[in-house]
Amino acid sequence: MGKNRLEAFSDGVLAIIITIMVLEMKVPHGEDLAALRPLLPVFLSYVLSFVYVGIYWNNHHHMLHATHRVDGGVLWANLHLLFWLSLFPFITGWMGENHFAPLPTAAYGFVLMMAGVAYLILARAIIAAEGRDSLLAKAIGTDRKGKASIVLYAAAIPLAFASQWLAQGIYVAVALMWLVPDRRIERALADHEH
Amino acid sequence: MGKNRLEAFSDGVLAIIITIMVLEMKVPHGEDLAALRPLLPVFLSYVLSFVYVGIYWNNHHHMLHATHRVDGGVLWANLHLLFWLSLFPFITGWMGENHFAPLPTAAYGFVLMMAGVAYLILARAIIAAEGRDSLLAKAIGTDRKGKASIVLYAAAIPLAFASQWLAQGIYVAVALMWLVPDRRIERALADHEH
Amino acid sequence: MGKNRLEAFSDGVLAIIITIMVLEMKVPHGEDLAALRPLLPVFLSYVLSFVYVGIYWNNHHHMLHATHRVDGGVLWANLHLLFWLSLFPFITGWMGENHFAPLPTAAYGFVLMMAGVAYLILARAIIAAEGRDSLLAKAIGTDRKGKASIVLYAAAIPLAFASQWLAQGIYVAVALMWLVPDRRIERALADHEH
Amino acid sequence: MGKNRLEAFSDGVLAIIITIMVLEMKVPHGEDLAALRPLLPVFLSYVLSFVYVGIYWNNHHHMLHATHRVDGGVLWANLHLLFWLSLFPFITGWMGENHFAPLPTAAYGFVLMMAGVAYLILARAIIAAEGRDSLLAKAIGTDRKGKASIVLYAAAIPLAFASQWLAQGIYVAVALMWLVPDRRIERALADHEH
Repeated sequence: MGKNRLEAFSDGVLAIIITIMVLEMKVPHGEDLAALRPLLPVFLSYVLSFVYVGIYWNNHHHMLHATHRVDGGVLWANLHLLFWLSLFPFITGWMGENHFAPLPTAAYGFVLMMAGVAYLILARAIIAAEGRDSLLAKAIGTDRKGKASIVLYAAAIPLAFASQWLAQGIYVAVALMWLVPDRRIERALADHEH
Repeated sequence: MGKNRLEAFSDGVLAIIITIMVLEMKVPHGEDLAALRPLLPVFLSYVLSFVYVGIYWNNHHHMLHATHRVDGGVLWANLHLLFWLSLFPFITGWMGENHFAPLPTAAYGFVLMMAGVAYLILARAIIAAEGRDSLLAKAIGTDRKGKASIVLYAAAIPLAFASQWLAQGIYVAVALMWLVPDRRIERALADHEH
Repeated sequence: MGKNRLEAFSDGVLAIIITIMVLEMKVPHGEDLAALRPLLPVFLSYVLSFVYVGIYWNNHHHMLHATHRVDGGVLWANLHLLFWLSLFPFITGWMGENHFAPLPTAAYGFVLMMAGVAYLILARAIIAAEGRDSLLAKAIGTDRKGKASIVLYAAAIPLAFASQWLAQGIYVAVALMWLVPDRRIERALADHEH
Repeated sequence: MGKNRLEAFSDGVLAIIITIMVLEMKVPHGEDLAALRPLLPVFLSYVLSFVYVGIYWNNHHHMLHATHRVDGGVLWANLHLLFWLSLFPFITGWMGENHFAPLPTAAYGFVLMMAGVAYLILARAIIAAEGRDSLLAKAIGTDRKGKASIVLYAAAIPLAFASQWLAQGIYVAVALMWLVPDRRIERALADHEH
């Protein structure tokens, strides 16, 4: 079974998620700066989520580039990942409109954590379909970066109730850690080609 | 005529349907758990519909993978299927916001049933274009699973007025029955390749 | 320049138009049949517009299938067509919510007419890029069907103020006339292949 | 790394942006011309933004047509461009609903300017990945047109507070200047092929 439609469908869903998030930023009625100010937290959480969806798109792109076999398990693992990502517009809007209040901040961390777990499951499903000696299995290895992210999100959830800014700091730090696309896969692919 | 644009267009529509359904889950104004609680039925119906659209995408993917010829009848049969699927966001929102009340639950079953019928018609249109000896005709056979689903949805519609939970149970059971992608087609394809 | 991205972009826009139209059908607050009844005209205008976007997608699909060269003029003629089609969700919602009142019915006819004109311009732009002896030029010929549709829409606009049902009848009749995909192109392509 | 998914994802995002902008044009409640009149400025700003997104799609299409290598830097430069374009529906709606008031007009110019800067950065990132002797580097050269646009947007921002119509005139003039797709790239490609 080809991976092309899986990529096309995922691209479609990710493109829509990244674009409809902006709809949570409602057009204000006034025409002065004061009308724009309440939107600042919504805008900031939009930027954060835009970067996260961009990270997922980049890494998804890399992972499927290194993939050759797709089976039913991979299709559903991919849909499971898209499910958690599809909650981004909702959870981003809730966090932004409540000015990063503790509970919405914790809930945002929960969705991030579940998306991270879903990404890990997808990687496992692909490796299971391709075999332990596959290119992807070598490229990802023990996937310390992915597991560390999940631990950090899990830590941020209770921390949000002590200080939401600490939790936000963790979300920003993990995003920065991922901004560079997955060099491990790029390197393994480059090794493979030479 | 190629099937590529048919797949691309269907992927686009399915990706949008699965993603805009989440827009029915309106961002609440409060920042506490109490603000989130009224959203629970909307969330649950979102999960159910997400799984159903995922099932349709998976099966559609498999069916077109086994397809070689596409004619005008297939294009319209496909649009007919997409029409019923396009009602998912509306009917899911209506069912969720009314906490699975009898009439919305029955209406949800009606849309599921019509989508099931449309899928059957699409399979017939493809077989008509490809010929009775085609790969797909062999793979699907009498399509007992598809017909059984339609009968179950049809039964759930009146049952919803006796007990909506019975109808919901049927919807969940049919979804579970389909969660595994169409092994019949996978097997026929595998046989074909060997 | 390849036509693939033109097709992909058009498929994307058409898929979104056909799907967001359903968002004009707002989820009602009540849970009984009475809550659903005011939505009937919105639903009917949704069905009509769904069929029209489906017709445009089918014919666009056929036309580009017969196309080999795409230049800047074709790109803009295509965007011009997509512009008028992008007004479908708005005009469909306006007509439906006002129960097919004369002015919204006439305005719907105006958008249909402009989309028809834009389709004609696109066909001309492709023929200009491909040459008078191209496959498409032979297939479309004088395009009597396209021109007749435009005349019928133009007639429906003033007729809507005499009787909106007459205008609606014209819209339905033209849609039925187009439901069959463009056999002229299919035939010319078939001739070409043999 | 292939450029196909980059194109597909960008096409998806641009298709969604260009289509959801129309959602800012809310369906009015009345059924007469008076109900339509307040929508005129929203409609005009929709037309302007539709043309701008069309220009970006056309130029993006041309630029990637001349591109062969895509690396991590290009992926993020592309996402950065999509970020500013994703603000079009919001800023277009704000400008339209406030009848082209000075501040929204200036803010619109700011988003246009940032998108222009992001496009320049993307071109640089591609040239950096492809090398100074690449086809694209030759085709774009010093990119006087792109830089001139950015200077004009920057001038329009303060001018909007003196006269918003002057700023609007600049936006329209720059759009007209770009309506013709990038002949420099077309010419360089044509030279290359001969």
